[in-house]
Amino acid sequence: MQKSPSLFYDIILLHLHTHKTLLLLLLLLLLLLLFFSRFKATGGGKRQAAEMDPDAVAKAFVDHYYSTFDANRAGLSNLYQDSSMLTFEGQKIQGSSNIVAKLTSLPFQQCKHSITTVDCQPSGPAGGMLVFVSGNLQLSGEQHALKFSQMFHLMPTPQSSFYVFNDIFRLNYA
Amino acid sequence: MQKSPSLFYDIILLHLHTHKTLLLLLLLLLLLLLFFSRFKATGGGKRQAAEMDPDAVAKAFVDHYYSTFDANRAGLSNLYQDSSMLTFEGQKIQGSSNIVAKLTSLPFQQCKHSITTVDCQPSGPAGGMLVFVSGNLQLSGEQHALKFSQMFHLMPTPQSSFYVFNDIFRLNYA
Repeated sequence: MQKSPSLFYDIILLHLHTHKTLLLLLLLLLLLLLFFSRFKATGGGKRQAAEMDPDAVAKAFVDHYYSTFDANRAGLSNLYQDSSMLTFEGQKIQGSSNIVAKLTSLPFQQCKHSITTVDCQPSGPAGGMLVFVSGNLQLSGEQHALKFSQMFHLMPTPQSSFYVFNDIFRLNYA
Repeated sequence: MQKSPSLFYDIILLHLHTHKTLLLLLLLLLLLLLFFSRFKATGGGKRQAAEMDPDAVAKAFVDHYYSTFDANRAGLSNLYQDSSMLTFEGQKIQGSSNIVAKLTSLPFQQCKHSITTVDCQPSGPAGGMLVFVSGNLQLSGEQHALKFSQMFHLMPTPQSSFYVFNDIFRLNYA
């Protein structure tokens, strides 16, 4: 019983020595398998990102965006890039620094957003996402909250995060 | 003077008969020129479409969409495709026929949209456009109009038109 495995390996080694072509083929097969397993793993990772619950991503983005807006508007700068566009009450602004300059210069110091609805949809093959928000905006010192609607077109970054490519904001006057 | 052109053509024809390779090359050159002039014309057409005033396109779309909605909701079907998505008051619907089935089954017969604001932005390299609308919706028999916000992601068709890829609708309750 103890001899048998050793004999088995001896036979295999003998075969490998006498069949160098077979050895090379086996090595090649192993390399191919490794390559495809890596390929599949990468694909799997991408699939996982695409299958992430979009509603959860949208909700997390909205929470992050408005809490940052209410606590430290300048902190929004890393959510935008140079190609980003904001249309704020009809005024068009492009680029992260211009957008943050606009947001930080709004004529109020303190505000509090309350979100009423968040809807989201995938926006096409580039992996983007549309987020549509409605809610109330309470300015400090004002009695009544302002109703607003806002839409974001989020685009994926190479770091598997998102940045705001399009942003359109409107107050809903009564 | 009359003989000269005839002689000229005779010489040319003689040349063409004796230089069949040259004739073939000339034909090939002509075909290449034709091909590239068509190619350039198409490119020019695309450039022209991209340079069209986006605000004017958005305004024309919005006029067409809501006048069709108010006159004949079933007529909206050719603005959507199978990949189109509608989120209507939080309910997600996909595909032209499902979307039109939803819109035609809304619990009112007559309505009139009045548009308050239209904002638009280009949505990325695929030639799409985001259109953000706010306005009032008057249902027949109702005293007060309902306020709504709606966003469309329009995508270009091969026929240089647009279809609605994303559509999110929300009423803005008081």
